[in-house]
Amino acid sequence: MRWVANRIRGFLHQLFAPPHSHGMEVTRKNFKQILPIFQKAVANAEFVALDTEFTGLRTNSERYSHYYDSPQLRYSESRDSASSFLLVQLGICTFEWENPETRKTLIAKPFNFYLFPDPTEKPFLDKRFLCQTSSVRFLSEHDFDFNKLFRDGISYLRPCDEELMRDEYEASEMRKESMQTNAIPNRQLDIDFLKSLKEKLSQLSSSESSKIGDSIEMQPFSRFQRLLVYQEVRNSFPNLLCDKVMKSFDSSSFLKITRIDLDEKSEIQSRKKRQRHKDFKGKLKHSIGLRKIIDILSTYEKCVIAHNCLLDLLHIHNTLIAPLPTGLREFSLSLRKYLPNIIDNKAMIGMHSVLTSRFPSTSVENAFRTVNSGGFNGPNIIFHKDFGRYSEKGIAHEAGFDAFMTGVIFARCCALLEHSSNPSEQKDLCSVSKNCYHPTESPTTNQSVNKVYLYRAPFQMDLINQELWLSGVADVVRVSLKEDIEAKEGEVYAVTTNHIINWFSKVWKHSIRVNWVSKHEVFVRLFDEHSTEKTSSDLIDCAIRDIQHLSSEIPFVDVQRYEEYHRSIISADNDDVSMSNDDDIDVDIDV
Amino acid sequence: MRWVANRIRGFLHQLFAPPHSHGMEVTRKNFKQILPIFQKAVANAEFVALDTEFTGLRTNSERYSHYYDSPQLRYSESRDSASSFLLVQLGICTFEWENPETRKTLIAKPFNFYLFPDPTEKPFLDKRFLCQTSSVRFLSEHDFDFNKLFRDGISYLRPCDEELMRDEYEASEMRKESMQTNAIPNRQLDIDFLKSLKEKLSQLSSSESSKIGDSIEMQPFSRFQRLLVYQEVRNSFPNLLCDKVMKSFDSSSFLKITRIDLDEKSEIQSRKKRQRHKDFKGKLKHSIGLRKIIDILSTYEKCVIAHNCLLDLLHIHNTLIAPLPTGLREFSLSLRKYLPNIIDNKAMIGMHSVLTSRFPSTSVENAFRTVNSGGFNGPNIIFHKDFGRYSEKGIAHEAGFDAFMTGVIFARCCALLEHSSNPSEQKDLCSVSKNCYHPTESPTTNQSVNKVYLYRAPFQMDLINQELWLSGVADVVRVSLKEDIEAKEGEVYAVTTNHIINWFSKVWKHSIRVNWVSKHEVFVRLFDEHSTEKTSSDLIDCAIRDIQHLSSEIPFVDVQRYEEYHRSIISADNDDVSMSNDDDIDVDIDV
Repeated sequence: MRWVANRIRGFLHQLFAPPHSHGMEVTRKNFKQILPIFQKAVANAEFVALDTEFTGLRTNSERYSHYYDSPQLRYSESRDSASSFLLVQLGICTFEWENPETRKTLIAKPFNFYLFPDPTEKPFLDKRFLCQTSSVRFLSEHDFDFNKLFRDGISYLRPCDEELMRDEYEASEMRKESMQTNAIPNRQLDIDFLKSLKEKLSQLSSSESSKIGDSIEMQPFSRFQRLLVYQEVRNSFPNLLCDKVMKSFDSSSFLKITRIDLDEKSEIQSRKKRQRHKDFKGKLKHSIGLRKIIDILSTYEKCVIAHNCLLDLLHIHNTLIAPLPTGLREFSLSLRKYLPNIIDNKAMIGMHSVLTSRFPSTSVENAFRTVNSGGFNGPNIIFHKDFGRYSEKGIAHEAGFDAFMTGVIFARCCALLEHSSNPSEQKDLCSVSKNCYHPTESPTTNQSVNKVYLYRAPFQMDLINQELWLSGVADVVRVSLKEDIEAKEGEVYAVTTNHIINWFSKVWKHSIRVNWVSKHEVFVRLFDEHSTEKTSSDLIDCAIRDIQHLSSEIPFVDVQRYEEYHRSIISADNDDVSMSNDDDIDVDIDV
Repeated sequence: MRWVANRIRGFLHQLFAPPHSHGMEVTRKNFKQILPIFQKAVANAEFVALDTEFTGLRTNSERYSHYYDSPQLRYSESRDSASSFLLVQLGICTFEWENPETRKTLIAKPFNFYLFPDPTEKPFLDKRFLCQTSSVRFLSEHDFDFNKLFRDGISYLRPCDEELMRDEYEASEMRKESMQTNAIPNRQLDIDFLKSLKEKLSQLSSSESSKIGDSIEMQPFSRFQRLLVYQEVRNSFPNLLCDKVMKSFDSSSFLKITRIDLDEKSEIQSRKKRQRHKDFKGKLKHSIGLRKIIDILSTYEKCVIAHNCLLDLLHIHNTLIAPLPTGLREFSLSLRKYLPNIIDNKAMIGMHSVLTSRFPSTSVENAFRTVNSGGFNGPNIIFHKDFGRYSEKGIAHEAGFDAFMTGVIFARCCALLEHSSNPSEQKDLCSVSKNCYHPTESPTTNQSVNKVYLYRAPFQMDLINQELWLSGVADVVRVSLKEDIEAKEGEVYAVTTNHIINWFSKVWKHSIRVNWVSKHEVFVRLFDEHSTEKTSSDLIDCAIRDIQHLSSEIPFVDVQRYEEYHRSIISADNDDVSMSNDDDIDVDIDV
């Protein structure tokens, strides 16, 4: 253990140094070779950790999140971000037992994939994406290689895009078969061209002047002249075939007209069609590219570990699965088909006080530092010898290394939870039980599965039970206010946090916490700081009743339980109602 | 001349090789040093050429341009592009005479500036910008260094952004002076903190336990506690001052509270204010950064040469001058204040048949090839010895080198025009007249000033006379059609180009050219290919009258002269009426 700790400390010292080795960095140059290695690593993995990098966080149009925003609202905002910015790096680190019987050493295999859409395909694939200035500068200051990304990123096609490509291919085949044009030249230039064309074709077509297999090449001057060539061959010379030939050294093309045996014509045409189909399938396979990764993850149904992963999951869904649906419920259902078991470290740490108390900060770097600074046990974790990219130094903010850190944090936290839940059974602190890293089977971590951390929120996002979060706001009331108070003397003043506290103090003798959403919307939590019990609904209802009696003194428009308020906007089928753009009044001071 | 031609041929052979030298590549690392060199180069220049690179060309929402789109419509579309994508490289090449008397050798100084907004400033400067996948891949395949761009791009502030920064600074100074808070702690944690704070401050404030200049440092736990510290010092301890101190090695901060002499308080505070003002001014100067370039160009009023430059000009305006106005007229007026004399090579070549006939292609690379392949004379053009970046090899698609090529094309074309307009005076083919490179003074090139090339259009954009383009469409009529024709037998069929030609052939015996805009909108040009004269308005009116007599046979809704049509939509103050998204029916075949 000390040896691992020393090595990991080694990383930290050089955390911000630039990369030199290129272990399992995956671009379109080596993707084909790496794919089977990746598949095997996932198949053998005890668990899989992932992390992503993207080109920005917040589009300009977004409002800032408020403390009590519903999961659906948070999803909508993140959806806007994930649909606008580009996922540029996907880090996946597999962890497998060196020996599954003794469970003393985990072997890590971090893969760092660069992703970039292939613009050469079809116009609909020439994607436009947003960048946030601060995000791309941050990445490049942490040695993210944008040149490599744009040049060598691996392409991908979601199933729906694949469908589009197939449709387009079939439509182009149909067009080829039913082609009918009737262009008539009008300019002298084109009239002359057609005349000379007819002569050449007649000569090529006639058995007196040519033999089967003879051909001529033409480089028409305009699109219209090219059309004339195709049309003339098709309409008047059944024993000729016209093909477009691309020059390999530049991207220009010419037309090649060949005399064929009439009896073999349909055979030649169907041979060509088969060749086109084969070429298309090859091209398609290449284009699908990185989507194979999610297909592999989905096949083996391993538990996937991430760290503060709402945006990561949305990006992965939007990039490799399908465009993001508007509803959180539909998103969860769709994601679950591919990644049925997700652990978010940050949510898990928040759910276990034995963990929470040990992490002064839960950013991935700080949490990694914490689990390596003593007090955490569990198995050794080493890199597989072929995955040496990070063994000399870690590269924070490279998705592959962040995925590695994420997996290490998970492994250490699960071990700690297991050891502290069964301190009597504690024999070998470097080993763990068989199910320790299978949260769906483990009583200690089971409740963390599919819970996603939300920033500045009193609840997590539960990907299975969409309503569970409401229990986290059972002691919260929503107050709508007149914008200003008119005092007795005709004097007008704004309502402040102190006003709110003073008013509620008359009906609630314990702790009060105030969160502003806008000048006339505020959430007030009524609780008892010294009690571990949640405030009962009855007590909240009672406080609301009492304060309503005082309403003549106080400029409330309405006071209601958050839960009621939320159900009313849901039933109005209009979850967006509470979206305002009053950024300047995001006060949110804890009193 | 042969020597130059050989050298230039040398570039071409290595045109696509990667760069090695770093002559006048300008980033934020050397911008301050280069600026005076640039200013001197512009001051001495005979003319200045420029080119830009940006992150994309077309946003998804744009429709494709049609041949007869008005300049305003083309401007609107380009405005959408220039407002969404980012200008990332600005190449400016100055050309000065080695000896202005003999005018035999021009010395080129190409500067290649990387631009990137500074996101660390203010939230409103953390710009979001769009990238087009194919464009960034194209640039990176031509060795554009995005890592350098994001890390070391030079920042810039337009005058309006500078104003915003000044406003924000002044508002923050005002807030400092009028700060009034009345926060009351409510949580036990904060109540304890305030109690201990008061004790510490009393001790520091009292002359019994401390002396003037003594200080304590505090690192409050939360934003609220920091507020309490400021508030307590301000309200209860007039002889203490509280400062926020940033740690230099990370971005964290602490509060430092110092005991001061009450008599000196206002002096200390105003000294601090002066220091803040000085810091702000320094920061502002740094932020303005690349805008200095356009200020310098504007000061010296040199003729600016570009190549196919509509988007370049819009980007420069949007990045360094002001957000783009909606109207082309306003844009032209605003641009002219900074760049009063612009030559677009591509427009100039199109305006002189002696040039047009010599260029098989007018892309900047091909045109450069053409002017160096014989038949063009004029002065030698060499690089200044300090600007050697491209002397070994050119780097096409790097803005600095493209600007150099642009200037060379201009120099060769002007020389050719001069030599062919005065063949009798032709003495020294390697020299030119004094005004040759001053288009505003030169009778041969004067008419090209402020004409901008438009892609696939029968006219240019005239930045001075906004109505001039209409003379380019005097022989064009606009036809609106019922979408489908119902033939006698109840059979429905679509109108084709051949239908249009057949109908117009009944009233027009010369050339007919058809351009579709949508299924029910088509432009028809009636002209005589064998005549150099424009078709007279009378003949067009006559043809329209004749075809209207046939209208019972033909499914026209309306036929009118393009000019009339255009004036009608302008007067309806609705230039966007003709914007449709029928991309799939952009037929546009020349017949």
